[in-house]
Amino acid sequence: MKKIINNPENVVNEMLEGIVKAHPEYVKRLEGFNVLVRANGPSKGKVALVSGGGSGHEPSHGGFVGEGMLDGAVAGEVFTSPTPDQVFEAVKAVDGGAGVLLVIKNYTGDVMNFEMAGELAKADGIEVDSVIVNDDVAVENSTWTTGRRGIAGTIFIHKIAGAAAEKGMGLPEVKRIAEKVIANVRSMGMSLTPCTVPAAGKPGFELAEDEVEVGLGIHGEPGTHREKIKSAAEITKDLMDKIFADIDLTQDDEVAVLINGLGGTPLMELYIVNNEVDKLLEDKGIVIYKTIVGNYMTSLEMAGFSISILKLDDELKELLNYKADTPAFKQL
Amino acid sequence: MKKIINNPENVVNEMLEGIVKAHPEYVKRLEGFNVLVRANGPSKGKVALVSGGGSGHEPSHGGFVGEGMLDGAVAGEVFTSPTPDQVFEAVKAVDGGAGVLLVIKNYTGDVMNFEMAGELAKADGIEVDSVIVNDDVAVENSTWTTGRRGIAGTIFIHKIAGAAAEKGMGLPEVKRIAEKVIANVRSMGMSLTPCTVPAAGKPGFELAEDEVEVGLGIHGEPGTHREKIKSAAEITKDLMDKIFADIDLTQDDEVAVLINGLGGTPLMELYIVNNEVDKLLEDKGIVIYKTIVGNYMTSLEMAGFSISILKLDDELKELLNYKADTPAFKQL
Repeated sequence: MKKIINNPENVVNEMLEGIVKAHPEYVKRLEGFNVLVRANGPSKGKVALVSGGGSGHEPSHGGFVGEGMLDGAVAGEVFTSPTPDQVFEAVKAVDGGAGVLLVIKNYTGDVMNFEMAGELAKADGIEVDSVIVNDDVAVENSTWTTGRRGIAGTIFIHKIAGAAAEKGMGLPEVKRIAEKVIANVRSMGMSLTPCTVPAAGKPGFELAEDEVEVGLGIHGEPGTHREKIKSAAEITKDLMDKIFADIDLTQDDEVAVLINGLGGTPLMELYIVNNEVDKLLEDKGIVIYKTIVGNYMTSLEMAGFSISILKLDDELKELLNYKADTPAFKQL
Repeated sequence: MKKIINNPENVVNEMLEGIVKAHPEYVKRLEGFNVLVRANGPSKGKVALVSGGGSGHEPSHGGFVGEGMLDGAVAGEVFTSPTPDQVFEAVKAVDGGAGVLLVIKNYTGDVMNFEMAGELAKADGIEVDSVIVNDDVAVENSTWTTGRRGIAGTIFIHKIAGAAAEKGMGLPEVKRIAEKVIANVRSMGMSLTPCTVPAAGKPGFELAEDEVEVGLGIHGEPGTHREKIKSAAEITKDLMDKIFADIDLTQDDEVAVLINGLGGTPLMELYIVNNEVDKLLEDKGIVIYKTIVGNYMTSLEMAGFSISILKLDDELKELLNYKADTPAFKQL
């Protein structure tokens, strides 16, 4: 294992310290917890958004804590759900009196632990609700989930529901909007290489020199199949066909596109993929309203990418364009 | 070679198409050239900044075209300087009547071709000047340069000289500020893995399973030495010692820090490095004014990172904080 780390058991702690030291104007850490909250929070009278999950997906989710997106992010150990007490601390810390929405990626551990934290917070008198993101069209059930997995499409929930909360909407409205985004977003990914969890010390799986895995999850969970590597155009078409088959998109519909790198993919390749995605959408007369390209929901150093397509309406477009100012996503 | 590409000979063209399709609100391509310029340019009466170099360093430099940073970016083939005619076209396209500053990374090919383009533009009646960035303290001369190489510290020139231009300063002032940044910034990097130029089809060099290269250049040019991998703390200290030895930093000095990923490094590791850099600066009583962490000057899929330290004064701080709105760097 060749990584720039110190003690493999301490990577999450040191990473969180490094994030806070890099971005003190945005985030602070709850002492004794693996929780990042807004430096200037909680925002009184504003619905607060909390997300999180296992570490190793940076900048998800701590990088999205800030104005117009999240209020708190909870970091579990690498690829491991955070425990309910950690999530509970986050909820207590960010509540500004208008309630808290938990944005949970659909993994069995996350759902259980976040919902348990929600119950604890409710018992404490905090208004809490939650949404579960399940944008990955690759597999219906997986080794880590019942139902579809939540992957990079989650960024759109952070952005759009975060804007709704920032604009002063109440908890039911923010939840309605988050659920609209979830209903309208589909993602699928593929991988060229595995990744190594520091504490494990060796890759989670192996791929041959000319082999890729299609539909792979962000923890290296199995995808739909392995195959010989194809051209960017062919790979992109395969992923987009699965997405198109699952979402009702017709001519003149408007979409947002996220080409998400898994951590080890050069930006050059992500832009080449975007060029292909754009052609496929244009062929169907679908209008691209906004495109985001970069590393947003990663799997450590895994090489590969995912495509997320979000179908928009006027409400979603306005919120997507709303100001955001976080370490990893800014919009002027 | 496992890459998400189509024809290896066409990666730069397809990437540029993908960038323009992703960010039409920021950039457009000069038809027939590998040049990106501001979508709403040229800005009349504003000094224009042009940078560029070989491709493979994305988001450098096209990702920094936009308000408060560059006006144009010229993309050569992968790790190959753009030709003078391409740079000349960029200069002509961005000139708003107040002159053009070329920001050149110190590589023999880049310096020759950008300066030749500058001469062509001067003959055409355009006021042109240039600065040469040589922030890499690793090696005094290299296989690709006379003198030090220009690496990730270049981002600070784009940001700060870009702000000076945006504020309406004249060409001599913008150049003076760019040169102040160059005089005040030092960088050094290391690498865990090689990278593969698509048209070459195989890695530029090899490293053993437990070996790293210290001081490696962004094209895989040799660094100072190879060694067994050490802890993040030890690696960071080695790089910072070289930087400290080359720049006059004393207690209460203020600096900006850039922890730059080379393309294949997880953000988790970059933040762990930042945690170590912060400690080393604190030990000397040096004040961290701003920190940037992420992939800014990459080497395709190379795993590794560089540290850049910029010594600040009031003028540089104000310009560093100035608004920027580009695909890859935004500041509200």
